[in-house]
Amino acid sequence: MLICKVLKPLVSTNRIADFQHKHLQVVLDGSTQKVAVDAVGAIPGDWVICVGSSAAREAAGSKSYPSDLTIVGIIDHWDPDAAKEMAAGNPTANPAKPSGGAG
Amino acid sequence: MLICKVLKPLVSTNRIADFQHKHLQVVLDGSTQKVAVDAVGAIPGDWVICVGSSAAREAAGSKSYPSDLTIVGIIDHWDPDAAKEMAAGNPTANPAKPSGGAG
Amino acid sequence: MLICKVLKPLVSTNRIADFQHKHLQVVLDGSTQKVAVDAVGAIPGDWVICVGSSAAREAAGSKSYPSDLTIVGIIDHWDPDAAKEMAAGNPTANPAKPSGGAG
Amino acid sequence: MLICKVLKPLVSTNRIADFQHKHLQVVLDGSTQKVAVDAVGAIPGDWVICVGSSAAREAAGSKSYPSDLTIVGIIDHWDPDAAKEMAAGNPTANPAKPSGGAG
Amino acid sequence: MLICKVLKPLVSTNRIADFQHKHLQVVLDGSTQKVAVDAVGAIPGDWVICVGSSAAREAAGSKSYPSDLTIVGIIDHWDPDAAKEMAAGNPTANPAKPSGGAG
Repeated sequence: MLICKVLKPLVSTNRIADFQHKHLQVVLDGSTQKVAVDAVGAIPGDWVICVGSSAAREAAGSKSYPSDLTIVGIIDHWDPDAAKEMAAGNPTANPAKPSGGAG
Repeated sequence: MLICKVLKPLVSTNRIADFQHKHLQVVLDGSTQKVAVDAVGAIPGDWVICVGSSAAREAAGSKSYPSDLTIVGIIDHWDPDAAKEMAAGNPTANPAKPSGGAG
Repeated sequence: MLICKVLKPLVSTNRIADFQHKHLQVVLDGSTQKVAVDAVGAIPGDWVICVGSSAAREAAGSKSYPSDLTIVGIIDHWDPDAAKEMAAGNPTANPAKPSGGAG
Repeated sequence: MLICKVLKPLVSTNRIADFQHKHLQVVLDGSTQKVAVDAVGAIPGDWVICVGSSAAREAAGSKSYPSDLTIVGIIDHWDPDAAKEMAAGNPTANPAKPSGGAG
Repeated sequence: MLICKVLKPLVSTNRIADFQHKHLQVVLDGSTQKVAVDAVGAIPGDWVICVGSSAAREAAGSKSYPSDLTIVGIIDHWDPDAAKEMAAGNPTANPAKPSGGAG
């Protein structure tokens, strides 16, 4: 899943019927803007988890919903600067407190 | 979903039968040209929403239609320059007027 | 779908049985070489439309054919230089003659 | 599948019901951070195999689970520096001891 | 499908049960290392065809096998330097001997 920032709602009046009236959000994936179906009620500025591939359809509500990117969760706390430090391999950026394994 | 600009129709006389006579459009995804099946009747210059992955098939009309990129909506208003400003993190580029949440 | 150029046939004697004897072509996607199943009889030098994702399987002939990239059409006329001009936003490169909408 | 490094667990209280209570991990794919569903109980620092596409759903436990990236295995030994050497074409980086073919 | 070079087998003792005991190979896709399920018995140094997307599952042996990258064929002859020349548009690099169309 992708970690994206919600930028703003997107209005598309002329759309296929299968899209129904679900909310669409412009999200920022790195430096690329994409459109995601919003399944959680996110607002601009939220950091969210976006699921793609065929899973985006089920996440949007039904197997036949034609989405390839769906917002499935709002991240509680996300610090993009600390994240960049960790990605660069700086071990002191975040002590990574594991919460107990996946068992 | 991707935010693309419609460039021009594409003519392909020698194509597989499953493609039928649906309109194909050359669209610009960033700086890459791709081909999308047009499900909404877009015209060159339109900014559109393109859906990929397995959802592109259903969006094109049926589960067995062999598309991996389908135009599913025309964006009402899209300002590519303001979008670039927002992507760069400039908060004044667009005040991001949310239209009421996803409820 | 991708706009690719056919480079040459690919020979792979040791392949899984599900691949059968269908023709494989090396195609150029931008500057990356990929392998596509040929469903239309393209020849080296042709500019073609390649479909990916799960649609590539059906396009190759059956739902269980294990392709993720299938040549589904030969483009009648493609000028890669004019295409680059259009991608760069040069409006005079190609006047984009629409052929009547998607109705 | 991707070779990723586990960075830290991700907390998302407001998430779609289909996500259940499965553990989510922030993983590093090259220099990009992504979110994966953890099916093996990995801990920060582990090098893991992540599966994407539609296979991520089944790997997460059921065909209808909405994941597009699932941790499916922990790599026994992974030396990222030796890996870079091999990727650069240095034949002495790792003698590549094959373990007997796929039969 | 991707054209990859096999680097070495990958050992992952702690893996999900669905992965069974199939051989995993580290392959080089351009300059990125990925993991592929080996369905043909390739050895390090082989140039192979890797299939992704949902087709990787069927290629690995069954619809429910959780692979997103499967080695489906060994390329008989592959010259990476000539390939680079062709990708750069050098027509003399390889005369591209077509083997008779897709009929």
